[in-house]
Amino acid sequence: MHEIMNELIKFQKERDWKKFHTPENLAKSISIEAAELLEHFQWEKEYNVTEVGEEIADVLIYCMYMADALDLDIKEIISDKMKKNAKKYPVEKSRGNALKYTEF
Amino acid sequence: MHEIMNELIKFQKERDWKKFHTPENLAKSISIEAAELLEHFQWEKEYNVTEVGEEIADVLIYCMYMADALDLDIKEIISDKMKKNAKKYPVEKSRGNALKYTEF
Amino acid sequence: MHEIMNELIKFQKERDWKKFHTPENLAKSISIEAAELLEHFQWEKEYNVTEVGEEIADVLIYCMYMADALDLDIKEIISDKMKKNAKKYPVEKSRGNALKYTEF
Amino acid sequence: MHEIMNELIKFQKERDWKKFHTPENLAKSISIEAAELLEHFQWEKEYNVTEVGEEIADVLIYCMYMADALDLDIKEIISDKMKKNAKKYPVEKSRGNALKYTEF
Repeated sequence: MHEIMNELIKFQKERDWKKFHTPENLAKSISIEAAELLEHFQWEKEYNVTEVGEEIADVLIYCMYMADALDLDIKEIISDKMKKNAKKYPVEKSRGNALKYTEF
Repeated sequence: MHEIMNELIKFQKERDWKKFHTPENLAKSISIEAAELLEHFQWEKEYNVTEVGEEIADVLIYCMYMADALDLDIKEIISDKMKKNAKKYPVEKSRGNALKYTEF
Repeated sequence: MHEIMNELIKFQKERDWKKFHTPENLAKSISIEAAELLEHFQWEKEYNVTEVGEEIADVLIYCMYMADALDLDIKEIISDKMKKNAKKYPVEKSRGNALKYTEF
Repeated sequence: MHEIMNELIKFQKERDWKKFHTPENLAKSISIEAAELLEHFQWEKEYNVTEVGEEIADVLIYCMYMADALDLDIKEIISDKMKKNAKKYPVEKSRGNALKYTEF
């Protein structure tokens, strides 16, 4: 992960793109790429795994740039969120159902 | 990263949520979480970094579940996409500007 | 508005697209078109009004198809929502600020 | 439609919200509300029509504010877009299928 992050930073530096990569612009970009991913599931049940993988990568790449812009550690924010989720969704209440925690 | 992925899979198994985590449902979820992230930048310039970090984590978590559902390796899809991006956005054409490759 | 709705229905019928226009598919489509609209504001401050207008139209068109699919009257749902908004955002609390009603 | 638009403008004026309703902020808001609409179709097949109607209204309301901010006539932009769509999706090529025009 560290390795990939370094590659992303290098790519950004070479193109002098850090000035465009503000948290707000990246938040917009993540929504835009997420919608491109969703487009593969718009009308039909079939999809192309390679193409879908590319769209997931686009979302991940902007998330990584955003973590970098905010000086956040990806492993840490995911781990922290999973702890919160475990409390919000205790096994006994959420097992086998898709209820939101506000509906328990 | 491997470690976090295992944690996510364990969380999913304990709740029997794999049945909900279809590629299509995850694509919708990524868009939904991306919009919650964007909401922090809707009207004002200020934002709370911790809260923003949690939303980025939500997007990342669903992306990881989606990669798992499609049997895709995260490092690989990002690395492949970055190679494509490097071709689409050569340094000499993209340096310092935010043009889309279709506008070069 | 009635006139436009009839035009949309005619367009849909001629192409036998009602079968694709399920509420779920239209919800995805609205998100996808909303992101295409957002793309015009991704990196720069400039935008092309005509192009932006086309993207707004795309969002509106899918909203109209969705209202039709659910047998909802557009004027009515907007009017009902505005009444709710007026209660959630009383003038004296919301005047000149962008606070969410949960923050009052 | 004219009537509703006047109601929206009055609501906005009373709260002095025009300053927040820039095209960019409204584009973000449309994406955010579109995702709230999508959330009703995230995991399950059931949904509440009244709640879904409220979310569609939210998307429509921001679209109308955006048209106003850009001095665009809603009827006109939809009508123009439908003419474009009719050319992009001729009946004989698109009847009964969900192909994108780029795939014809």
